[in-house]
Amino acid sequence: MEKKLVTIKDIAKTLGISKSTVSRALCGRTDIHPDTKKKIIELARSLNYEPNALAINLKQQRTNTIGVIIPETVNGFFARATGGIQKRADMAGMNVMICQSDESYIIEKKNIHSLMSGRVDGVIISVSHETDQSEHFAALQQKGIPMVFFDRISEDLETSQIITNNHEIAFEGTNHLISQGCKRIAYVAGPHHLNNSKNRLHGYLDALKQHNIEVQDSYIIHSSYKSDKVEEYTRYLLNLPQRPDAVFAINDFAAVEMMHILKKSGLRIPDDIAILGFNNENISRFVEPSLSSIDHPAYDIGMAAAEVLINQIRHPELKPEKRIVKSKLIIRESTQKQPQL
Amino acid sequence: MEKKLVTIKDIAKTLGISKSTVSRALCGRTDIHPDTKKKIIELARSLNYEPNALAINLKQQRTNTIGVIIPETVNGFFARATGGIQKRADMAGMNVMICQSDESYIIEKKNIHSLMSGRVDGVIISVSHETDQSEHFAALQQKGIPMVFFDRISEDLETSQIITNNHEIAFEGTNHLISQGCKRIAYVAGPHHLNNSKNRLHGYLDALKQHNIEVQDSYIIHSSYKSDKVEEYTRYLLNLPQRPDAVFAINDFAAVEMMHILKKSGLRIPDDIAILGFNNENISRFVEPSLSSIDHPAYDIGMAAAEVLINQIRHPELKPEKRIVKSKLIIRESTQKQPQL
Repeated sequence: MEKKLVTIKDIAKTLGISKSTVSRALCGRTDIHPDTKKKIIELARSLNYEPNALAINLKQQRTNTIGVIIPETVNGFFARATGGIQKRADMAGMNVMICQSDESYIIEKKNIHSLMSGRVDGVIISVSHETDQSEHFAALQQKGIPMVFFDRISEDLETSQIITNNHEIAFEGTNHLISQGCKRIAYVAGPHHLNNSKNRLHGYLDALKQHNIEVQDSYIIHSSYKSDKVEEYTRYLLNLPQRPDAVFAINDFAAVEMMHILKKSGLRIPDDIAILGFNNENISRFVEPSLSSIDHPAYDIGMAAAEVLINQIRHPELKPEKRIVKSKLIIRESTQKQPQL
Repeated sequence: MEKKLVTIKDIAKTLGISKSTVSRALCGRTDIHPDTKKKIIELARSLNYEPNALAINLKQQRTNTIGVIIPETVNGFFARATGGIQKRADMAGMNVMICQSDESYIIEKKNIHSLMSGRVDGVIISVSHETDQSEHFAALQQKGIPMVFFDRISEDLETSQIITNNHEIAFEGTNHLISQGCKRIAYVAGPHHLNNSKNRLHGYLDALKQHNIEVQDSYIIHSSYKSDKVEEYTRYLLNLPQRPDAVFAINDFAAVEMMHILKKSGLRIPDDIAILGFNNENISRFVEPSLSSIDHPAYDIGMAAAEVLINQIRHPELKPEKRIVKSKLIIRESTQKQPQL
């Protein structure tokens, strides 16, 4: 059965606006009122609008393809972010090719090379755990290929970037734990040199400082985003002379594993130890106790990254753009202590 | 700090074999004893061997890139499979570019087009939920681009494929539920037309038949692999006049959500209703009760798909190869009923 395809005309008619406004909104142009743009994109999404690539007036030298370099997709964040990139690219009639760095600097360099040989029109990047250099990104920039970093950015370069309010949200999460009476709050941070983990760590430290809680180095763990060391550092925290009364975990999968180990050790969550996750994976609603977390809007971040990149591909004269997509604290059972009588 | 790179020579020396044997094993050749090959690959993996692409004798017309088309990466299976593909490709000095179909036939066709314009050397595919045609794959085949399907295959074409023992494992899982005294076993199947869900469904039906248990159509649900309908069909099953005493779920994430709803409804797992998942995600060990599941070896499937494809790129004269990677039943608490006294 042939589905009837939704056109720009249908969207324009439904909203009572011109076809050119719809077209400009879907191409990611910024010369439209944000509310109108939002309405158009939401309607296009709900109608599963698919652009007719042949009908789009493309300059001849473009391959109409966006390259993406992400560390991995096993943790849900990057999988959902690429979902957002894919959706936004489809809406603009563009294709997406993804390379995974597997958190390796060497593979990331190869990825750049592959995408350059494939002559992509632009690249969206979230840097690998290992990467502390930027020459390979600079090479891309020198070729005039537009780039947008998201979540994990390269701070050495002047490029577009989509980030979240990392400092603010870690500050808010830590404050929430303090408000529940927690005083010995352990923090599982990402790698030292990555912007997102640095900013989050500072949010945590600033919240402690504001409440005159002394920072204990033994409570701060630097982990990779992979979840292979969770058991090891959970046992370490359990065996400290002064056991923490809360843990701000690196992500939800690590938090769920940690809760499992703590419960097996006879500890009550949150009364003996509160647990706060990160990413707000679906699973956080279904575990016991349900897991408080930070809603890190991966899909929206991906949508924004693709939109900014498409803008820059179509309007090379534009200056780099920085957007902040806000994360949100989601409070569930794992951090809500019973009031002390 | 510069890391010392591991070379083929190092691997050959450690194992006391020739460099050419090591090289042939890492290129995916089959003219080596499987035990030797396994040893070489395991050592290369443990040493994080990275091939020197420049040193590899590549024919000029190749881009040295493998294209991959997968439905999505939000469920862990495809994320882990691409991890395996990436690893095996790296070991052979090849790059990987991934396109996601988002379970859409239209996007899958565009993916094929993108990869063809990017002149990839070969393509690894797992077909989208919507796909029930094969012309777009045939077009690739006519261009002489080697293809390997994995998990979800296109049955119309004579190509290489990596599949699992779907029928056998669903038969074994269902038998296990019957052995625990379950007689009203609900089954959440994938789409009708996909080979993997068809074969699994037959495994379930054959197990019931073998035990003279009547098939109840109301116990068989056809779902997508996305987990957006879990609450709906769980409520449907709960409201049946004869509630099932077991559910064989479509995947672990769906199973965990289902367990959450069932527990909230006051049902005991496994005593009132046993739950068997699929995919053996990490999370299955950490929920309560721990979730029995089918270990579906995604990483190994990805490694095998890349190996077979690399063979076919380097030796176009080879006939299509079919490999079966075995899944395994993992029994945990969610299906182990207390013996009736």
